Amino acid sequence: FGGGPGVASGIAPMRFISVDALRPSDRFAPRHNSVSEADAAEMLKVCGYKTVDDLISATVPSAIRRGVMNIGRYDAGLTESEYLEKIRGMANKNKVFKSYLGMGYYNTHIPPVIQRNILENPGWYTQYTPYQAEIAQGRLEGLLAFQTVVCDLTGMEIANASLLDEATAAAEGMGMCSAMSRGKKPRFLISDKCHPQTITVCQTRASGLGIKVEVGDAATWKFGPDVSGALVQYPATDGTVSSYKALASQAHAAGAKLVVATDLLALTLLEPPGEWGADVVVGSAQRFGVPMGYGGPHAGFFACHTQNLRMMPGRLIGVSKDSHGRPALRMALQTREQHIRRDKATSNICTAQALLANIAAMYAVYHGPEGLKTIANRVHGLAATLAEGAKQCGHKVQKQPFFDTVCVDVKDAKKVAALAADHQINVRVLSPSEITIALDETTTLEDVDALLCVLNGGVSPPFTSASLAPKVQPTLGPHARTTPYLEQHVFNAHHSEHEMLRYLKKLENRDLSLVHSMIPLGSCTMKLNATSEMMPITWNELANLHPFVPANQAEGYKEMFEDLAQQLCAITAFDSVSLQPNAGASGEYAGLMAIRQYHRSRGDHARDVCLIPASAHGTNPASAAMAGMKIVTIRSDDQGNVDIAQLREKAIAHKDKLAALMITYPSTHGVYEEGVDEICKIIHDNGGQVYMDGANMNAQVGLTAPGVIGADVCHLNLHKTFCIPHGGGGPGMGPIGVKAHLAPFLPSHPVVNTGGLPVPDGKLDPFGTVSAAPFGSSLILPISYAYISMMGSKGLTEASKLAILNANYMACRLSSHYPILFKGKNGTCAHEFMIDVRPLKASAGIEESDIAKRLIDYGFHSPTMSWPVAGTLMIEPTESESKAELDRFCTAMIAIRGEIQEIIDGKADKENNLMKNAPHPAHVVLSDSWNYPYPRERAAYPADWVRNAKFWPSTSRVDNVHGDRHIIARIPTLEEARAEAYAAAA
Amino acid sequence: FGGGPGVASGIAPMRFISVDALRPSDRFAPRHNSVSEADAAEMLKVCGYKTVDDLISATVPSAIRRGVMNIGRYDAGLTESEYLEKIRGMANKNKVFKSYLGMGYYNTHIPPVIQRNILENPGWYTQYTPYQAEIAQGRLEGLLAFQTVVCDLTGMEIANASLLDEATAAAEGMGMCSAMSRGKKPRFLISDKCHPQTITVCQTRASGLGIKVEVGDAATWKFGPDVSGALVQYPATDGTVSSYKALASQAHAAGAKLVVATDLLALTLLEPPGEWGADVVVGSAQRFGVPMGYGGPHAGFFACHTQNLRMMPGRLIGVSKDSHGRPALRMALQTREQHIRRDKATSNICTAQALLANIAAMYAVYHGPEGLKTIANRVHGLAATLAEGAKQCGHKVQKQPFFDTVCVDVKDAKKVAALAADHQINVRVLSPSEITIALDETTTLEDVDALLCVLNGGVSPPFTSASLAPKVQPTLGPHARTTPYLEQHVFNAHHSEHEMLRYLKKLENRDLSLVHSMIPLGSCTMKLNATSEMMPITWNELANLHPFVPANQAEGYKEMFEDLAQQLCAITAFDSVSLQPNAGASGEYAGLMAIRQYHRSRGDHARDVCLIPASAHGTNPASAAMAGMKIVTIRSDDQGNVDIAQLREKAIAHKDKLAALMITYPSTHGVYEEGVDEICKIIHDNGGQVYMDGANMNAQVGLTAPGVIGADVCHLNLHKTFCIPHGGGGPGMGPIGVKAHLAPFLPSHPVVNTGGLPVPDGKLDPFGTVSAAPFGSSLILPISYAYISMMGSKGLTEASKLAILNANYMACRLSSHYPILFKGKNGTCAHEFMIDVRPLKASAGIEESDIAKRLIDYGFHSPTMSWPVAGTLMIEPTESESKAELDRFCTAMIAIRGEIQEIIDGKADKENNLMKNAPHPAHVVLSDSWNYPYPRERAAYPADWVRNAKFWPSTSRVDNVHGDRHIIARIPTLEEARAEAYAAAA
Ligand SMILES: Cc1ncc(COP(=O)(O)O)c(C=O)c1O
Ligand SMILES: Cc1ncc(COP(=O)(O)O)c(C=O)c1O
Ligand SMILES: O=C([O-])O
Repeated sequence: FGGGPGVASGIAPMRFISVDALRPSDRFAPRHNSVSEADAAEMLKVCGYKTVDDLISATVPSAIRRGVMNIGRYDAGLTESEYLEKIRGMANKNKVFKSYLGMGYYNTHIPPVIQRNILENPGWYTQYTPYQAEIAQGRLEGLLAFQTVVCDLTGMEIANASLLDEATAAAEGMGMCSAMSRGKKPRFLISDKCHPQTITVCQTRASGLGIKVEVGDAATWKFGPDVSGALVQYPATDGTVSSYKALASQAHAAGAKLVVATDLLALTLLEPPGEWGADVVVGSAQRFGVPMGYGGPHAGFFACHTQNLRMMPGRLIGVSKDSHGRPALRMALQTREQHIRRDKATSNICTAQALLANIAAMYAVYHGPEGLKTIANRVHGLAATLAEGAKQCGHKVQKQPFFDTVCVDVKDAKKVAALAADHQINVRVLSPSEITIALDETTTLEDVDALLCVLNGGVSPPFTSASLAPKVQPTLGPHARTTPYLEQHVFNAHHSEHEMLRYLKKLENRDLSLVHSMIPLGSCTMKLNATSEMMPITWNELANLHPFVPANQAEGYKEMFEDLAQQLCAITAFDSVSLQPNAGASGEYAGLMAIRQYHRSRGDHARDVCLIPASAHGTNPASAAMAGMKIVTIRSDDQGNVDIAQLREKAIAHKDKLAALMITYPSTHGVYEEGVDEICKIIHDNGGQVYMDGANMNAQVGLTAPGVIGADVCHLNLHKTFCIPHGGGGPGMGPIGVKAHLAPFLPSHPVVNTGGLPVPDGKLDPFGTVSAAPFGSSLILPISYAYISMMGSKGLTEASKLAILNANYMACRLSSHYPILFKGKNGTCAHEFMIDVRPLKASAGIEESDIAKRLIDYGFHSPTMSWPVAGTLMIEPTESESKAELDRFCTAMIAIRGEIQEIIDGKADKENNLMKNAPHPAHVVLSDSWNYPYPRERAAYPADWVRNAKFWPSTSRVDNVHGDRHIIARIPTLEEARAEAYAAAA
Repeated sequence: FGGGPGVASGIAPMRFISVDALRPSDRFAPRHNSVSEADAAEMLKVCGYKTVDDLISATVPSAIRRGVMNIGRYDAGLTESEYLEKIRGMANKNKVFKSYLGMGYYNTHIPPVIQRNILENPGWYTQYTPYQAEIAQGRLEGLLAFQTVVCDLTGMEIANASLLDEATAAAEGMGMCSAMSRGKKPRFLISDKCHPQTITVCQTRASGLGIKVEVGDAATWKFGPDVSGALVQYPATDGTVSSYKALASQAHAAGAKLVVATDLLALTLLEPPGEWGADVVVGSAQRFGVPMGYGGPHAGFFACHTQNLRMMPGRLIGVSKDSHGRPALRMALQTREQHIRRDKATSNICTAQALLANIAAMYAVYHGPEGLKTIANRVHGLAATLAEGAKQCGHKVQKQPFFDTVCVDVKDAKKVAALAADHQINVRVLSPSEITIALDETTTLEDVDALLCVLNGGVSPPFTSASLAPKVQPTLGPHARTTPYLEQHVFNAHHSEHEMLRYLKKLENRDLSLVHSMIPLGSCTMKLNATSEMMPITWNELANLHPFVPANQAEGYKEMFEDLAQQLCAITAFDSVSLQPNAGASGEYAGLMAIRQYHRSRGDHARDVCLIPASAHGTNPASAAMAGMKIVTIRSDDQGNVDIAQLREKAIAHKDKLAALMITYPSTHGVYEEGVDEICKIIHDNGGQVYMDGANMNAQVGLTAPGVIGADVCHLNLHKTFCIPHGGGGPGMGPIGVKAHLAPFLPSHPVVNTGGLPVPDGKLDPFGTVSAAPFGSSLILPISYAYISMMGSKGLTEASKLAILNANYMACRLSSHYPILFKGKNGTCAHEFMIDVRPLKASAGIEESDIAKRLIDYGFHSPTMSWPVAGTLMIEPTESESKAELDRFCTAMIAIRGEIQEIIDGKADKENNLMKNAPHPAHVVLSDSWNYPYPRERAAYPADWVRNAKFWPSTSRVDNVHGDRHIIARIPTLEEARAEAYAAAA
């Protein structure tokens, strides 16, 4: 051992080291932002800029550039392992008690094979909404199974592919009743035995729609001619099961409709609402294998009769056929989406809960009808046993029939609940004297014993659940179900893990997702959803918390919410955030309702005009309509910008009634409009508020901000800019940020105290409640929190810059092949851009959908089609795509343009060509009869990379018109299939 | 509220419930055992039996049937959630301190994208060894990358696709040196600066091979003509880096070889051994992203010069071409596998560490050469900073150069280690006065500060690592590396998560695994690896424990080991188990060594004859040879059974020298031989011990047991019967169970006290050490523990019965199409059976490999080919496959028989037919030029199910001969590729 410093004996130079070189080298930003410095340099050359900052300066109007952003605590950005350590610490602050709180949320076992192969699998969770049916048959089959589960269990004819949660599904049901009465029947009745959050969400929704809600005892209802419908809960929130058959008849006699909120597990044993007269049936599929997640995400469901199909909100999956006549699935009635219906919409649902609907469907597939019934009978038996035990402990107990929820008169409900909490048990305080205990799939005999101990004053009674059970007679009385369900093959074939795994993989392998290639959907921001962002969401401490647990059991969530809200405030330059809205559209609605409440708080009751540019996303006018606003449309000028002159004119014209402007920034045309600050000023000058649609936030973060630009409120699609994966059509989150003056009006919740975060000063005056859960889909908030915390301010800002660089690079590469539709002042685009393919219609008979389908042959998902401008494709690359990937995509687009040129040049046929016949599935290109006027290899292998790794579409082009003419939206039983000549693909 | 029981008002009958109906309904066994009762009834009909038990009675000899099995604690079987709760409790008893113990094990960050998409992804972990190259190009590419990483970093010409661990790799190196000297040079030198477990494993191995090991100071070595080679560690176990160049010259001058054990991360900065004369370079790739896992599994590596290629142990991946001349990968030199080399083998390695090798390779791909260098420089810088701090705390510190391990003279090493432990830090006690501290990728400046606090007597010194760093000059002196590495495209292209994810998915999608269809490989038991079994292995408390932590930090593991050992004792009817061997072959070797030690303990030094039936797996004779035994082969009679007369004759002839019999039961021919009890008796009567090869344990569990049959020792391939997934060629575990008289001789470990579990009474006399880690690949033991605990005795027994039923059902279905080669007394088979395809060679020119390749077109992996009998296919379905899947496979086999009939009938050509041209990849069947004499669709879609979901091979038939003639076993650099006219597929 020597005492001195090491002596270098020649070769290797001795160098001092910097402290920075000793800090963790596994930074996250370079893993997320895929463009290397060398690549950026090349790309800038193509764009004609020296540096990225030059490009940004030329692109983002200097008037709205922000100063340095600081996201707070983790401003420098955490490494992945540092983040995982932090969130582990927070998660550990949550306390996972046994929760028997019910109210629509139940413990459930997510089968491990489903957890790992759907929820934790990027092959499933990075899919987009199945707009391109030919590369989405897997999830379409899953969603069809979901619709089938809902139809069969509710006894209804048709169901959609999910809504956001049970409460909003009920509100949609109410809206549909109102719409069916063509707005002529203002009253809507709600049973006081509905879950409290369902009632509040409906009341809020009613206030915007101008519906008069009356909450009361259903037994006393009278249906006058002014009643559009009524809502009941079955089983009721207190657990009772009773018949609404007479009520349904009464309603129908008066021309009113009956909406029933229900529980799928209960329906495996109970007579389904469809059999006793329900018109609409709603609920949550959460307990079918989806963790409670402190409130969500879960799939809400909505079922009705076929005759009302065209009024049904949400997406519908249906069976059609492909161009070769083979059965194929696709989204039916796509024209119903808001972007078409706009201000005539009664619903603004867009992103829903596809991933969770798929999980619920697969839970049903895995258990099958017998398995589900066994689970339900067990829960029911445990509940009956608990009731018997409670009685023997000396309590008055609710009579049978009940399904899973037992109501006990304990005299001092709060005291018993407190005693329960000491035993790490949560029970619901229903009234001063009553508690309810809702059991579930995870409850064991030992759990019932622990409950009986609590009911026995904290000491074990002289009996156990096992000793009581043999004497217990559970019954559902006259309500027992007699009709079968889920007899289709798929629910009776995959009950071992091997079979299930292979079925899941078979579906997954039919679907193109981000694991294969970029998904350049404009306005959708399909960026990397990093694994480290996703990992915590299946941790017990985050996944298995009931949303209504006492605050001291959710301190980890609280810390994370506060941090995240503060980060979002920093990013948006706002003062407070509501984490409640669980989709972008829900955020729009919440934001407009906050504006409305703000005006009212100032006595401004007349302000109900909402200016909306013609280029707005369809959810904008739909949300405005739902908030009771009148829509005035502002046209675009020929640069695609808002016509400021017209805007000023209309603002002044409506100045006494002006409530708000809704504006997307950068615009939905992919341009940083120069006059946006001026626009905001005009609105403010005329008494209005500025609602910013934050869908394009990925072009703002760190460069500008809604609060800097002049907006008063903005929603953030966390499933776009902030890395929540799209899940094939949801989940999402749409929190809203607001300026201080709007903060008091942010949504509250009837069960859990909440409002804006940071909590605003002064008195709160919330407009109501927009989601069933206080913090929306809490479970996925850590994803965005991870992204922001790991990127840090610098990484986030870099991301925005690279998103813009990537888009401009692509626009430059493509511009000599396709016209770019709109550009900013200096000829640049924002983070996305449109190519105009209308000229090709004229010259070659080629439409945007033909290009979209041909792109599939090249292994790519199409850009956004026909929106916001018909005849265009809108391309958004995001910062997560590398130059190599952008180049592949551009090469494909350019090659397709060449293929189109052959038509123009008369070398290829106008009808029978590579585009019109696309996509080309394997069974077509290898068919023994090949009759197309081009070689097979040209069809299937138009580029090198598909020879190396081909993603095969599973059908040829799907016929939308055929399917819409003849809706089949659940899996036929074997008999039905024979009759329909449709054999389920499974 | 009513007080009485619920009054049923008619319809639903009231029924009492049983307590059983209230117990958890989500039992595991029916998820694992895929055959339903209804299916079993149908299958029995085909087999001609009334009940499963009738079939079993007719199949398993009554003489060896066991009584009721009781696996103990969880005899009734846990549900998946119950198990996860139990193992969570055990995991929480482990304490995850910061461990700086080094000795070949280091903390590492497994990149989340790799963790989730390889280690936690059944698409990767359920693959088999890539015997069918056309459906294994993904993992073959990964393993080629692994070989490339090893070659580039070590500076050697050729490397294999992993060995079991560093210590056994060193022992293989020693064995190779000995073999190269043709056994003529008995001495082998080992530096005392090697890791202690490496030394012990080599000493043990040497004792069997008859090599004389001398451990000492390398500086004093003299190489006589009797020295075959020498082993040094670089950097040494105490951290020092010194030159062995002179040593290498000395060795070479004396005709000896130099084996170097090294560290891949260090080699990113250090002059590689290949540049200064090493002949063999070995080590562990653990710190390339593979969790320590309390000892394993990790990929050991082995590199040498091309000229010694044919002596290199283990599997080698090489580049060849397919039948269309396109580059394609496959296992090179497959004929080297033990089953060919048998008793001439010097190594018995079979199952290796493919999955971990792939992880290590992908870690290198994700970081790239620059990323690896950055990590290494950081670790080196921190180590230098620590050394400087230690010095400033007043200690004598090892001089530079060192890489990551700092040796400090602290005077009282134990005291300092104890103080460290109080700070939740583990340091290594190297000598009474010295400790070493090995830093790693996860170490932070804060960690160094905590270490300095310990070195400063438990109080923070007046400086921090950050304050010291700028004054520190890390250097590697003359040892610094000057040559580049990992310049190939694949290591410089996937550095963002998106790119990485897509690369991983691209590879995954080329490989057929259990997620697609059954893999009916006889002798391999490819059964379900349930998700719940897999989940715990990535938990921090299990994954991140250093194998040499003090016992009180590993109490969770201890509890699990004890439970598992007791379960395995119950299953095998043995008295004690060693969990050390980390593959089946390692278990064989350990078992034979225990027998050897037993004989010696009784003064029986002459007993060295091992009887081995001709039908034995090649690892059997190889293991016997390694244990210093002489092999006497016993022939099979024409029923395929051991010729008992000959066995008796040889046993008597060798009676004074008889050491052991090795026997597989049921036999490798898939038959429960009737005389096995008699066989055991003959051996015992002649002074021998019975070694049972437990590869076919899946046909025994609950029905019979090695201990019941009369065996003395048996290994259990946990990666077969007990659900550890095969990982594309490992990991595995091969614990051995023994009767009480052998228990004292079970392997020990030089660092951690271990032996048989339960601990045998009396004095222990272990024969030595067989694995680097005391409990082998500890991290994967929970998989088997989960399986056994969730199945319970009944479920396990049922599994054996259904495995037998499945095999017999298939044999019956296939028997009218293919002759079944061997059967038991009553015409039944065990859990597997062989079909004889030799007649088809004569009649149609079709060989087993043609059928194997044609099966790929049907979406199936081939059964085991040509083993144990040439010209056969051996089919093992396992209990996890459903009747539907068995039927699909049978349908495929029968259809292929029909295709062959066309050749026999002269309707198809003998050379140009569906089988000879198989498999048919997409690019072939859709080729613009199709010249085969059958339709494309017939080639690609020979069955319904492939139309529904086709698994495409990625190459046409791979040419093994071409590749073996011209070995390319690392990824060429761009220049090399051009020269070789081979472009890497990536
Ligand atoms: C511009 C714009 N606004 C609003 C929305 C609606 O958001 P969500 O789908 O989350 O409800 C979208 C969704 O694509 C959008 O692109
Ligand atoms: C009968 C038999 N014995 C021994 C072995 C060797 O086991 P391992 O590959 O785990 O070393 C095998 C492996 O397949 C086998 O089939
Ligand atoms: O791995 C085998 O040799 O079976």
